[in-house]
Amino acid sequence: MADPWQECMDYAVTLARKAGEVIREALTKEIEIMIKSSPADLVTITDQKVENMIISSLKQKYPSHSFIGEESVAAGAGSTLTDNPTWIIDPIDGTTNFVHKFPFVAVSIGFVVNKQMEFGIVYSCVEDKMYTGRKGKGAFCNEQKLHVSQQQDITKALLVSELGSNRDPEVVKIVLSNMQRLLSIPVHGIRAVGTAAINMCLVATGGADAYYEMGIHCWDMAGAGIIITEAGGVLLDVSGGPFDLMSRRIIAANSQALAEQIAKQLQAIPYQRDDATD
Amino acid sequence: MADPWQECMDYAVTLARKAGEVIREALTKEIEIMIKSSPADLVTITDQKVENMIISSLKQKYPSHSFIGEESVAAGAGSTLTDNPTWIIDPIDGTTNFVHKFPFVAVSIGFVVNKQMEFGIVYSCVEDKMYTGRKGKGAFCNEQKLHVSQQQDITKALLVSELGSNRDPEVVKIVLSNMQRLLSIPVHGIRAVGTAAINMCLVATGGADAYYEMGIHCWDMAGAGIIITEAGGVLLDVSGGPFDLMSRRIIAANSQALAEQIAKQLQAIPYQRDDATD
Repeated sequence: MADPWQECMDYAVTLARKAGEVIREALTKEIEIMIKSSPADLVTITDQKVENMIISSLKQKYPSHSFIGEESVAAGAGSTLTDNPTWIIDPIDGTTNFVHKFPFVAVSIGFVVNKQMEFGIVYSCVEDKMYTGRKGKGAFCNEQKLHVSQQQDITKALLVSELGSNRDPEVVKIVLSNMQRLLSIPVHGIRAVGTAAINMCLVATGGADAYYEMGIHCWDMAGAGIIITEAGGVLLDVSGGPFDLMSRRIIAANSQALAEQIAKQLQAIPYQRDDATD
Repeated sequence: MADPWQECMDYAVTLARKAGEVIREALTKEIEIMIKSSPADLVTITDQKVENMIISSLKQKYPSHSFIGEESVAAGAGSTLTDNPTWIIDPIDGTTNFVHKFPFVAVSIGFVVNKQMEFGIVYSCVEDKMYTGRKGKGAFCNEQKLHVSQQQDITKALLVSELGSNRDPEVVKIVLSNMQRLLSIPVHGIRAVGTAAINMCLVATGGADAYYEMGIHCWDMAGAGIIITEAGGVLLDVSGGPFDLMSRRIIAANSQALAEQIAKQLQAIPYQRDDATD
């Protein structure tokens, strides 16, 4: 049987590449910023323009599908995940990087059916790296097959995470105390390139052994999530339980064993779910 | 008058490129690691091989010059900076990245005469980016002229730093409390790609506004230091006083104003100087 979603995936790759061109062009100019939930949570005209371009193109081609986009949600659209084929879009993952022209900025497109990730695309557009993952068919970067690393001993692991954009003193305290516990195990190190999607893709390439973060959103994880699992990795909740795309928390690791060792060290930060109705 | 050190610089660029080839080749194979000062302070055969290659080539051509190399010092060589023309070399800046094949690894070569930085070379060899700076002649990346960013307001700044390889609980505590204070100002964010030299070059490109770190060594800073100043930036001590290459501490920023705002937030970590004699 032909792959029912291959055409959607091919089209999404084309759109991600087109979006990347718009972003690269914008990076050559002055960038004006607006503030969202905190002075470190930024958005620009380009985020909105790129999201509109992607969603309007997809809606025209797939009018029966559902859409969850970072900027549409910021503008008041809902973000409840149903069984309907659903596109989950972050037009610029790493907006703060984009604003500063720090060279890690990604277009993230995830596609979910019956609440299962079917494919994901992360286009790191300054590096010109197109990461893709299709359920059952592997993960790739610029056509090269990806494999997670083998290191399951946390004392020899390299992690990626972020300090995040939340500046609530209680949240910052937990973020840093989680890092303190991990460093003290010890781990080899913790890196932070400033985008969830690229951090996760670095795990998929084997360059880092695991990524964890809390407070991010479904659109930060939906593209890269299946790239990780198709590269041989696992997704877990920070509690060590099953991963939930709408929960705003993730451990993405090369193995269940490593993910569980990280989960043991993490204090959870209470965040409202992406699909909370109040 | 002809530039007395141009020939040295051209030769160093050639050597850095050759070293990069050796590193890229090593990245395609299994990498064995050895431990230095802490379980997170690593070294490999490739670090030693590349340093030997660079220093033996330079010694043959410039027998009267002095040399300070990370692995030579680890093996017992001195690291006192005199007025003699001195090459300061880090064969692999980002050894932990190298071990994990995390794609930011640099060859760093600095050249200092009368204790003044004359030129510096940082070759980010996975990205194939050759950063160079020559006193009075500007800084470049792959021949493109570099300029630091304009942002002097710390509340809108993007910083780069590292959690470091020291796992002494007191040191980790200060590293994290420094980050906590900076995040609370707030700053836009703090990134960490895992190598001092590439972090500093990101400041030189304008992608980040400032870098700070303590506990690093002269060989981590000697190549990129002049790339920062030639791109229009400044180097300062973490106390806000003048920068000292042998002090193991640095703020590298787009401006004096931003560097001073960062200095105000930093608690110093006592490290023995690189030129300490005991």
